[in-house]
Amino acid sequence: MRRFCSAAVLLLLSALGLAAQTAPPASPQGKTDPALTAVRAYRQANGARILGEFSQLLAIPNVASDTKNIAKNVAFLRDTLTRRGIKVEIWELPGASPVVYGQLDVPGAKRTLGIYAHYDGQPIDPKQWATPPFSPTLFTAATESGGVKRPFPKPGEAIDPEWRIYARSAGDDKAPAITALTALDALRQAKIPLTSNLRFLFEGEEEAGSGNLEAYLTSHRDRLNVIDAWLFCDGPVHTSRRAQLVFGVRGVIDMDLTVYGAVRYLHSGHYGNWAPNPAFTLAHLLASMKDDQGHVLVDHFYDSVEPLGPAERAALDAVPDDDAALRKELGLVETEDNNARIEERLLLPSLNIRGMASGGIGETAGNIIPSTASVSLEVRLVKGNEPTHMLDLVEAHIKKQGFFIVDKDPDMATRLAHPKIAKLARSPGYPAARTSMDVDIVFQIIQATSRAAGENVILLPTLGGSLPLYLFNDILAKPAVIVPIANHDDKQHGPDENLRLANLWYGIDLMGELLTMPVEK
Amino acid sequence: MRRFCSAAVLLLLSALGLAAQTAPPASPQGKTDPALTAVRAYRQANGARILGEFSQLLAIPNVASDTKNIAKNVAFLRDTLTRRGIKVEIWELPGASPVVYGQLDVPGAKRTLGIYAHYDGQPIDPKQWATPPFSPTLFTAATESGGVKRPFPKPGEAIDPEWRIYARSAGDDKAPAITALTALDALRQAKIPLTSNLRFLFEGEEEAGSGNLEAYLTSHRDRLNVIDAWLFCDGPVHTSRRAQLVFGVRGVIDMDLTVYGAVRYLHSGHYGNWAPNPAFTLAHLLASMKDDQGHVLVDHFYDSVEPLGPAERAALDAVPDDDAALRKELGLVETEDNNARIEERLLLPSLNIRGMASGGIGETAGNIIPSTASVSLEVRLVKGNEPTHMLDLVEAHIKKQGFFIVDKDPDMATRLAHPKIAKLARSPGYPAARTSMDVDIVFQIIQATSRAAGENVILLPTLGGSLPLYLFNDILAKPAVIVPIANHDDKQHGPDENLRLANLWYGIDLMGELLTMPVEK
Repeated sequence: MRRFCSAAVLLLLSALGLAAQTAPPASPQGKTDPALTAVRAYRQANGARILGEFSQLLAIPNVASDTKNIAKNVAFLRDTLTRRGIKVEIWELPGASPVVYGQLDVPGAKRTLGIYAHYDGQPIDPKQWATPPFSPTLFTAATESGGVKRPFPKPGEAIDPEWRIYARSAGDDKAPAITALTALDALRQAKIPLTSNLRFLFEGEEEAGSGNLEAYLTSHRDRLNVIDAWLFCDGPVHTSRRAQLVFGVRGVIDMDLTVYGAVRYLHSGHYGNWAPNPAFTLAHLLASMKDDQGHVLVDHFYDSVEPLGPAERAALDAVPDDDAALRKELGLVETEDNNARIEERLLLPSLNIRGMASGGIGETAGNIIPSTASVSLEVRLVKGNEPTHMLDLVEAHIKKQGFFIVDKDPDMATRLAHPKIAKLARSPGYPAARTSMDVDIVFQIIQATSRAAGENVILLPTLGGSLPLYLFNDILAKPAVIVPIANHDDKQHGPDENLRLANLWYGIDLMGELLTMPVEK
Repeated sequence: MRRFCSAAVLLLLSALGLAAQTAPPASPQGKTDPALTAVRAYRQANGARILGEFSQLLAIPNVASDTKNIAKNVAFLRDTLTRRGIKVEIWELPGASPVVYGQLDVPGAKRTLGIYAHYDGQPIDPKQWATPPFSPTLFTAATESGGVKRPFPKPGEAIDPEWRIYARSAGDDKAPAITALTALDALRQAKIPLTSNLRFLFEGEEEAGSGNLEAYLTSHRDRLNVIDAWLFCDGPVHTSRRAQLVFGVRGVIDMDLTVYGAVRYLHSGHYGNWAPNPAFTLAHLLASMKDDQGHVLVDHFYDSVEPLGPAERAALDAVPDDDAALRKELGLVETEDNNARIEERLLLPSLNIRGMASGGIGETAGNIIPSTASVSLEVRLVKGNEPTHMLDLVEAHIKKQGFFIVDKDPDMATRLAHPKIAKLARSPGYPAARTSMDVDIVFQIIQATSRAAGENVILLPTLGGSLPLYLFNDILAKPAVIVPIANHDDKQHGPDENLRLANLWYGIDLMGELLTMPVEK
């Protein structure tokens, strides 16, 4: 893999900025683009059929634990890929959702692209949905903007790109399969050759934590080692509706912490002002961990952060600043570190309280001194942070505050030996990942995306959230770029999940460009 | 009411000290005591029946808000008193638990005693109980000391005084009704006359704050004005298991506090390290209120404390120091203020956390930034503290930390105008109270109690807990002495509340002595 200098990225960003107003299908560089022309013509002629195929897939329930329906998703994907001449394998592991693997070799192609997406979806509570989550329904706009239900279009009928399709996994994450296969159909019809071999990997338990993905990748390394770069098709585009590519994610690891007072609840009158209250003990401990500007006070917490390279720094500086609007939307006057930009803050590890509890509040409050106080802590990790090491630092901080560390509730002898005791329970976690922008295949992906978007594509060094991207980087040692297509307001994970058709169309355009992007710069 | 000098109290304390080893039923003065002999003989012959009557009362659920079951408690008490020829009135006020008032006039009695207890209990969380809270269950000892369940005794079966009866309100506060009525039965059987008229007052919402007790006492003043002294039957004996009388209580007032983050739960990945976490905000606020030695840091918090008089100080100095044993029992190495004595600490106002909550912990923890964090604060008040003023001081402290104070959840405009917002909700509270020891009827009560206990009775100027004693002092202007019988380790207010039978027996002995104590010194 040849490296190009980061100045090239800067140049590209600048070119994209200048070209942001150019109307597609001309590329930002002003040249007519045959792939884009072909996929758009195909989509305009076949819109009703594309939506039909997408709806068929969305109609299959896909909660990872629902093995019967998971098998139906697998069968649908297998048939859909096979129909296009893609060689399919169904990978299985005991107790795991199958992986649908597809292989398409292109004569003379010098490069192989991996296309990752997941076909499972978040659990649903149908009572909270306006329309049934597995009965895909078309609306004329977002329901919160006055959209109303309408029939799916007949062949040849005009389709408004502001229409939205409502169903679980419309936004997260069944669209990538449809967009890639539609782009393939369109390019074949226009006799435009692909420039890469393709490897599809559709996972079926991403929303359940991807617990078997590492085992799948490891045991099928022989199949996957030929892949030069991964397109990780998931997540939303920027809140401004502009196209974006994302080059990393934060890692995550949790730790539950309990501190102790007396061995039992005490009457707060008879013992209050004498017996230590563990809720105050916990408050002091938590206050020692983070100052009121959000700086983590744990020693060495920021030491292992890997700084951004110049390309990432330049890309970050080009991301539009949407913070003020976001604060307003969320009802916040101030955010951490004196309103530092969210993109900057996400480049640091976080120490978050997921929840805390002691005694009772409201109806359940009693006049007692609680006997324990607990908190669920979470560290989001950035590139350079080793998950276990980060929790070691937090544990060292707790020790430094005078706590004796235990891994189960202390017995009486332990209680009587140590004035301050903290029980720690760690959960498994995984590290951050970041793909360098200074790699030529990544440069090609950026260019292809900018052509599809016809605008200044946003390049985000990292998402704040976590995905098991590190597996692709670490196990397969290949670049992985997150290629989102969904609208940011797609209500992913919640009720009334939806995809805006303009975003589905963008996804097809994007796949048309990515499947035909040149190998050489 | 004649006053005697505090030297008399000191003399009495000293006499009791010398007599501490004397075996009952001889009094500390060495005389055989017919009342004590009578109630003990009666109790030995009727132990199973007494426990049966107590269990019947304990089996009736008694959370003050449960009006249907509150009515069943009222009916039970009414029938139980009526059966003994006590004239019963049920006092009612809209929205209040009824008061069960009982009147027993004794021919020739020159004195009237008021007997106060409450029949309601603290709210329960049945999941936390080893046995159902309203299915009274007998154990061979405290469960934490290896006690095992056993059947209630058959008539005539020997009863171990270390057995414990487990049920809500076993310790707090259904036993006094049973002990007083059993003593009455015993004295009647032995034909020993009472020396006082009796007035029973059973309250049904003490654990809910006694919000209507003032109205009840005021509106029935004509009935109550004849009472010369109140026996306030509640609270535990000393932690050393020695008998005690208590001459005061702390007051109490609560305040719920909520602080705010974003208007909704946020994804902790996408927003963590940028959006403020209200759980950390709360931790900082709480840490600012109390140092790690338990000193409250709220300005002027200790300014209004009224010092003890010389009699109280002398009595306090005579209280045995049981702190080391208590710490050991509770699994504590250190208590607040460098192990300062509990009796001294209870002479100061406390700032307690009853409970706190934010987000979820354990199974309910999610990868989110909570949108609120709440705490239930409680101030225990001592003589001199005005309840509202003490919360004013806490509120001023919160303001001083930069919070804007609201009384309901803030709307968007309020959120966007203030970086730190705290919602405060005060509950009604009441002040501390203290009865003078320098009154002759109090002297008689001290002597009667010492006879029942057969030991050096502890005289405590104040309990740490709270009771609406101030109403008896302030409205009725009569001395009120707290006459506790429950074991200190009765887990009152928490799960697995229980009463040790030795304490129930002591309660019957005590009532036998109090109902027959001489009018003249």
